[in-house]
Amino acid sequence: MRLHDRNWMQIEEYLKHDDRIVLPVGSTEQHGYLSLGTDAILAGRVAEEAAEPLGIPVLPTLPFGMAPYFTTYPGSMSLRMSTYIEVIRDLLDVLAGQGFRRIALVNGHGGNAPVTGLIREWTSAHREPSVEVLFHSWYNAPQTAAAASRFSEVQLHGAWVENFAWTRVEGATIPEGSKPPMSRALAGVLSAAEMREAAPDGSHGGDYGRPDADMQQVWDAGVREVRDLLENGWMKS
Amino acid sequence: MRLHDRNWMQIEEYLKHDDRIVLPVGSTEQHGYLSLGTDAILAGRVAEEAAEPLGIPVLPTLPFGMAPYFTTYPGSMSLRMSTYIEVIRDLLDVLAGQGFRRIALVNGHGGNAPVTGLIREWTSAHREPSVEVLFHSWYNAPQTAAAASRFSEVQLHGAWVENFAWTRVEGATIPEGSKPPMSRALAGVLSAAEMREAAPDGSHGGDYGRPDADMQQVWDAGVREVRDLLENGWMKS
Amino acid sequence: MRLHDRNWMQIEEYLKHDDRIVLPVGSTEQHGYLSLGTDAILAGRVAEEAAEPLGIPVLPTLPFGMAPYFTTYPGSMSLRMSTYIEVIRDLLDVLAGQGFRRIALVNGHGGNAPVTGLIREWTSAHREPSVEVLFHSWYNAPQTAAAASRFSEVQLHGAWVENFAWTRVEGATIPEGSKPPMSRALAGVLSAAEMREAAPDGSHGGDYGRPDADMQQVWDAGVREVRDLLENGWMKS
Amino acid sequence: MRLHDRNWMQIEEYLKHDDRIVLPVGSTEQHGYLSLGTDAILAGRVAEEAAEPLGIPVLPTLPFGMAPYFTTYPGSMSLRMSTYIEVIRDLLDVLAGQGFRRIALVNGHGGNAPVTGLIREWTSAHREPSVEVLFHSWYNAPQTAAAASRFSEVQLHGAWVENFAWTRVEGATIPEGSKPPMSRALAGVLSAAEMREAAPDGSHGGDYGRPDADMQQVWDAGVREVRDLLENGWMKS
Amino acid sequence: MRLHDRNWMQIEEYLKHDDRIVLPVGSTEQHGYLSLGTDAILAGRVAEEAAEPLGIPVLPTLPFGMAPYFTTYPGSMSLRMSTYIEVIRDLLDVLAGQGFRRIALVNGHGGNAPVTGLIREWTSAHREPSVEVLFHSWYNAPQTAAAASRFSEVQLHGAWVENFAWTRVEGATIPEGSKPPMSRALAGVLSAAEMREAAPDGSHGGDYGRPDADMQQVWDAGVREVRDLLENGWMKS
Amino acid sequence: MRLHDRNWMQIEEYLKHDDRIVLPVGSTEQHGYLSLGTDAILAGRVAEEAAEPLGIPVLPTLPFGMAPYFTTYPGSMSLRMSTYIEVIRDLLDVLAGQGFRRIALVNGHGGNAPVTGLIREWTSAHREPSVEVLFHSWYNAPQTAAAASRFSEVQLHGAWVENFAWTRVEGATIPEGSKPPMSRALAGVLSAAEMREAAPDGSHGGDYGRPDADMQQVWDAGVREVRDLLENGWMKS
Repeated sequence: MRLHDRNWMQIEEYLKHDDRIVLPVGSTEQHGYLSLGTDAILAGRVAEEAAEPLGIPVLPTLPFGMAPYFTTYPGSMSLRMSTYIEVIRDLLDVLAGQGFRRIALVNGHGGNAPVTGLIREWTSAHREPSVEVLFHSWYNAPQTAAAASRFSEVQLHGAWVENFAWTRVEGATIPEGSKPPMSRALAGVLSAAEMREAAPDGSHGGDYGRPDADMQQVWDAGVREVRDLLENGWMKS
Repeated sequence: MRLHDRNWMQIEEYLKHDDRIVLPVGSTEQHGYLSLGTDAILAGRVAEEAAEPLGIPVLPTLPFGMAPYFTTYPGSMSLRMSTYIEVIRDLLDVLAGQGFRRIALVNGHGGNAPVTGLIREWTSAHREPSVEVLFHSWYNAPQTAAAASRFSEVQLHGAWVENFAWTRVEGATIPEGSKPPMSRALAGVLSAAEMREAAPDGSHGGDYGRPDADMQQVWDAGVREVRDLLENGWMKS
Repeated sequence: MRLHDRNWMQIEEYLKHDDRIVLPVGSTEQHGYLSLGTDAILAGRVAEEAAEPLGIPVLPTLPFGMAPYFTTYPGSMSLRMSTYIEVIRDLLDVLAGQGFRRIALVNGHGGNAPVTGLIREWTSAHREPSVEVLFHSWYNAPQTAAAASRFSEVQLHGAWVENFAWTRVEGATIPEGSKPPMSRALAGVLSAAEMREAAPDGSHGGDYGRPDADMQQVWDAGVREVRDLLENGWMKS
Repeated sequence: MRLHDRNWMQIEEYLKHDDRIVLPVGSTEQHGYLSLGTDAILAGRVAEEAAEPLGIPVLPTLPFGMAPYFTTYPGSMSLRMSTYIEVIRDLLDVLAGQGFRRIALVNGHGGNAPVTGLIREWTSAHREPSVEVLFHSWYNAPQTAAAASRFSEVQLHGAWVENFAWTRVEGATIPEGSKPPMSRALAGVLSAAEMREAAPDGSHGGDYGRPDADMQQVWDAGVREVRDLLENGWMKS
Repeated sequence: MRLHDRNWMQIEEYLKHDDRIVLPVGSTEQHGYLSLGTDAILAGRVAEEAAEPLGIPVLPTLPFGMAPYFTTYPGSMSLRMSTYIEVIRDLLDVLAGQGFRRIALVNGHGGNAPVTGLIREWTSAHREPSVEVLFHSWYNAPQTAAAASRFSEVQLHGAWVENFAWTRVEGATIPEGSKPPMSRALAGVLSAAEMREAAPDGSHGGDYGRPDADMQQVWDAGVREVRDLLENGWMKS
Repeated sequence: MRLHDRNWMQIEEYLKHDDRIVLPVGSTEQHGYLSLGTDAILAGRVAEEAAEPLGIPVLPTLPFGMAPYFTTYPGSMSLRMSTYIEVIRDLLDVLAGQGFRRIALVNGHGGNAPVTGLIREWTSAHREPSVEVLFHSWYNAPQTAAAASRFSEVQLHGAWVENFAWTRVEGATIPEGSKPPMSRALAGVLSAAEMREAAPDGSHGGDYGRPDADMQQVWDAGVREVRDLLENGWMKS
């Protein structure tokens, strides 16, 4: 259930019998021909679909993440790391103070992964009661990546693997076919200006799209894997 | 238009003939019987409705704000001020770097207002090119407050003035009638623990609700006033 | 009484029977033909006169505030917001640690008002014992503003309403008459460079001065209102 | 001249022929039987007397410094180091931006001395135009210390060497005679709680006072030495 | 060559024909029966051996990293993430300012990996001239991990894969045999207190040691792989 | 004993009968013809030699310090003060949490001295149990400075007093004789660019070297004085 579809009394009631909550973290950044919100849309949606039958509240998606290498593409946003870790720290502090003991961040953007450093620091210092925080990048978790790999091993930014009916935008014609993949290693060292030159349309290569039926298989795997995490992924309990 | 309904190329195209953008800033916090997302929902919606006919992009709503006094009500979130000003600084830096010259923050939460200090600092230092940043708290802007005042001068947190069809939640029965208003001055000095005692159901008093027809008038005034701001509210151009 | 006119033993003695203290917060910034210290001088003086008969200690005035839009006028100082909130946090922490439970900031500068965000955060987190912090901008508090409005509704920066015998400086001839008022909305969006152009002499318009007898009425209202705050303005006790 | 006795136009005029300015930095902290403002009062006064005949503007004294070891004595204030260095950085940035090229901090409190680390960092990075910043602790500068040493080598906190007519307070009877000096090394490692026990009246020992005629000699040396610094102490010009 | 074996003139000379430099980053933390400095020792040594024949300067190893989960084991150190990213930022700023254009961090500790977020931010913003920063965790880079996997796939903290002649300490008898491996997922969510209970001797399981001849093969692979990185791993040139 | 020559169990054992530890803090910065690591090498070595017979653990040397004025000499590193104080704070926090009650920082670089402000803040706030932190700049401590003064009172950066067999580097020919000393006052106000011009070879003047027999006397005094500090320098116990 979406936390925004509840009032505080309902959450207080929930806390009497459960202590899990989900925070989707995304990004607002260029995804080639796809929505600037792709990473936020997918993280929020996969979290909500996964949590729905379990009755676990899902916080609103944090729509801004760390994407400094894309800021040269208009509409892309980015928070500095020093900012981002404080946002996550604040949210964890409040949640722990309210009695949430199992917190899952469902992540939709690779650039956010270093926040695990802050999470590790936060959980290390938290003594009593013990709180468990999971950080799950849904799109490259084992089962989901395996589902996608049945179609292609080339799974890059702004390309087919993010091309769902709910990440396409009106007025944009996505090219047919594919383009050569950009090396991940190269993508990892470019400045924002160099990135814009290296990826003129924003996609990092491979197929631009695949049939929706294929995509549904990837999506279903993603939802299943997040749901499994929320049910069985807690290590400490 | 919602920025998330566009890709970066469309925003780049937009920037060739316009330089305005809207950032709705809300809060996830207790609103009595109403949605925990009330301030975020209303800020985002009023911004999107206002901007739609103007074709101005609306960023995703920042769903977390400064609400430290409500953290004792489960489901309420809060960012420290030192965090919040850095989030806004980062977003302004990126937007200015991409060529946006007129940026409107449409705010749905009173506790966020002190971020104007950061905005004033940011704009003061920005020399060339000149950027204008407006901070508009939609719910107590003159025309909107006047529209609400036709029904009642008592316009407090978590009560009728925030009770729209789109902020009510399933499974919650909102009381009929009203309760005595809490003094704003008192609300301004309580600790989070004291607040919970002073407002047991979270509402700060007055009528719990009004007919939807009345609410529509308030809403329409809100949308009109934001739209007018986006069209005519820029002081420097 | 001025805290600087006391030693620590006298303050320890005071704390046995009272728990109030006053911190005047001002600014050092251009005020047109008036003293660069206008906001600091007035905040300190109004606080000391108000507190004198009550025997409440008044800390030395914090002479630097947030005035980033005036830094292009020589002699104007400004602290960044990230700095200013830490200064106030530190002082509140020390005061609370020493047993002060009612702390009044008497403010003389509009640009400082966003520090209320930090104060609200600080008080929200303070559980036991409960501390109350008031932030009072003396110059536009209701009674004082009403006293000034008897003379003119135009009460702007660096003009008559700040022109007291104790804010005028040697060697400066203040113009007779008035100049057109600058819109507050415009003043709120200019960069420091634009501000200098928009207000060549620093005053934001209206009358440059009024008879000292008129000013004394404004001043007396200001002192009375601060004194009333210190006596009766505490909400929690 | 005190900057607060001038308006911005006069400072702009001053900058046409000079580029020096003085910032007195003090502390509000226990000084035994003497004023809680001792370090601020003395730094401000020595700076103003020294600068007066030279026509150099003196900023208002920063009345709060780093005195964490005294916070257990009521009325003592302290800024954290992370706060204090940002305050000084902000003021230096503004002053340099306005054309001041020779900035003298006249310091009245030993605990503030580590801010030289920030000053050194700030000046190191400042390339063009070159700015010179001096940090002068007036009370233990060579000539002043020598003047005091003519009376006694024991020159400790809250004792005779800070006991001037202008640091004594009404209603306090300063003991005659002396008490055993506390070791500086010990004073440097105590917690605030331990300090309170180690120095029950706040003085760190030696004579509590000396004849005003003696003190005047110390004072005159202090003023002379600051004045000499402002005239001849600049290394880069 | 070790930078500490050179003076600045030699480095200036070096910069006339090369622009590469290596920064080893380690950690001081419990490694079971092995040295508290294991991660620092190995990172520094592998970097120096790899760089030696290439004549690339190697900075002194940063001996402290992010290891908050081990702080309950005496002698383990840890920097907060907010601290650690500023250390790396400062070093990158200085190096870039001196003309280094290819900077390789050779990392010996898994907990340090999130600093890649800061590095990515730093490189993204760096426009002209372009600087390339590599972050290489030597111990689990492909070739080195493959070399170790020839002996065992279980390669965990404080066990055989870190047990070299140069990480063993006097007076410690390392157990023969092995113990059950701890799950990496579990290790990733424990507090520091829980970690101490979960790993009583600090090792995370598997074999405690292997013959030195085996270890030499792992080491040689590590050195070769770092050397290859320094010679051929630069993506932008 | 070097902490890196021990495992955590040995340190835990040590803590059962002792609570002292040493942290050498150095700098990586130009020292004229001498090693870029001079301050780190000397601080680490003097600490280790001094502590050896006492069995007190010596942490690895922090090789980077505050040297902003030397960053124009290639190979010199510098941390900003805001970074450096957090590094030291973190290390003190961890050490105190593990039961170390007497912590000695042995410092090899004058530019690091302002960190005493942070140390003073840290110890002031530490209530129970009491922790004592000493900051000892070995090279200008009384006995060591006296030993050096027997040869020359001119003891400046990058010159004879730092010229040991273990700070000289291969391939560098140190000039015979001396050069005129730079004034310390001047060195304290120069920007990094100005410093490079003022000290073209990096040395601040005086003799470039002295016979190793003389240097050994200085060194022996340094070791003795640190050892005496570790044995007898604790004020609180």
